[in-house]
Amino acid sequence: MVSSTPARGASNGNAAEGRVGQLLQIACRLFATRGYDGTSLRDIAEEAQITKAALYYHFPNKEALYQQILAENLETLTTRVREAIEHADSAPEKVRTFMLTSADVYAEDPHAWVAGSNAFWSGMGAANRAAMVKRRDKYERLLRACIVEGIAAGEFRKVDPALTGRLLLSTLNQLTRWHSPEGRLTPRQVIEQYLDIILRGLQSSASGQG
Amino acid sequence: MVSSTPARGASNGNAAEGRVGQLLQIACRLFATRGYDGTSLRDIAEEAQITKAALYYHFPNKEALYQQILAENLETLTTRVREAIEHADSAPEKVRTFMLTSADVYAEDPHAWVAGSNAFWSGMGAANRAAMVKRRDKYERLLRACIVEGIAAGEFRKVDPALTGRLLLSTLNQLTRWHSPEGRLTPRQVIEQYLDIILRGLQSSASGQG
Repeated sequence: MVSSTPARGASNGNAAEGRVGQLLQIACRLFATRGYDGTSLRDIAEEAQITKAALYYHFPNKEALYQQILAENLETLTTRVREAIEHADSAPEKVRTFMLTSADVYAEDPHAWVAGSNAFWSGMGAANRAAMVKRRDKYERLLRACIVEGIAAGEFRKVDPALTGRLLLSTLNQLTRWHSPEGRLTPRQVIEQYLDIILRGLQSSASGQG
Repeated sequence: MVSSTPARGASNGNAAEGRVGQLLQIACRLFATRGYDGTSLRDIAEEAQITKAALYYHFPNKEALYQQILAENLETLTTRVREAIEHADSAPEKVRTFMLTSADVYAEDPHAWVAGSNAFWSGMGAANRAAMVKRRDKYERLLRACIVEGIAAGEFRKVDPALTGRLLLSTLNQLTRWHSPEGRLTPRQVIEQYLDIILRGLQSSASGQG
């Protein structure tokens, strides 16, 4: 899910931008598979086949690099989801679109999701952590707004929107713990079956049985 | 959730058994907060205020210690849940009991749950991993059996029992990632609200609206 957006500070043309994009992708994979604490800038430089000095030229330290990866990933996820739900014309359809689009983003780059998910457990500085939580909240608020809208419109029962959002997000976040790309179902297919249960459980009696 | 069952090999009376129980509890907390790789036998000995030699007397190595903790925790969890669901008289009630009992076990000792959950990501040897997966499957199969039973009895719709079990277990396992003991709701209260949605979503039209 690492986008090809150029790194802040890299302004000397497409070659440098491509190089930074590659670096971010390699670093993201290492952070996801070895954890933040288990990955050093030396590991990333070795994997990218560049010198540590060249890596330092782009990123002053490991936390700055990690921050940029997390920020881009969450930005991509949030933008994709926001654009997708604009075309949905009911709250249940919006919740479904939020979840399936997220599942697709997950499937396209599970490492990005794992790196983001592990971030909350890493020894990140307070300021960076606050910035990341703010970005994640923006994503989560999109979902919560769909739930609130559905309750107001009488499409959903009067559930707790925050907890219902947690329930839905738990199913996405737990994919990283068990889903295998070689499994019989894609993330989208898994989430579709979950939604079949959860959306039915949210239906107000007024909105009828689907 | 570490039980007071004596360690295998510790047979010289209650004092030794109590000491081993204490060791297991301290080790479990460290594994949960620092991760398996981030915890050494030296850390555990220091925290327990014993010599490394005394620790080695009870446990030959870190993996053996970790294994015993995980085995006892999963055994306790499975036994508690199995006993609780025996008293439930319908499949929905059994699923509810499975989930709420698990939430209580989680609440009593979140560290035990986190240590177990992290285990699947640690550098555990193949034999120990296989033994652990077998124990975890025993727990998960109890839930799946309740779902299968509910479908057969016409209490649940014809959903995929394995995926439905995953959905339910995802909500429990995700508690470790966000629930705070200082939060406004206990794990049981959170799971109750989730069940209000999920069990309703599983209801067959024949079983009516609860």
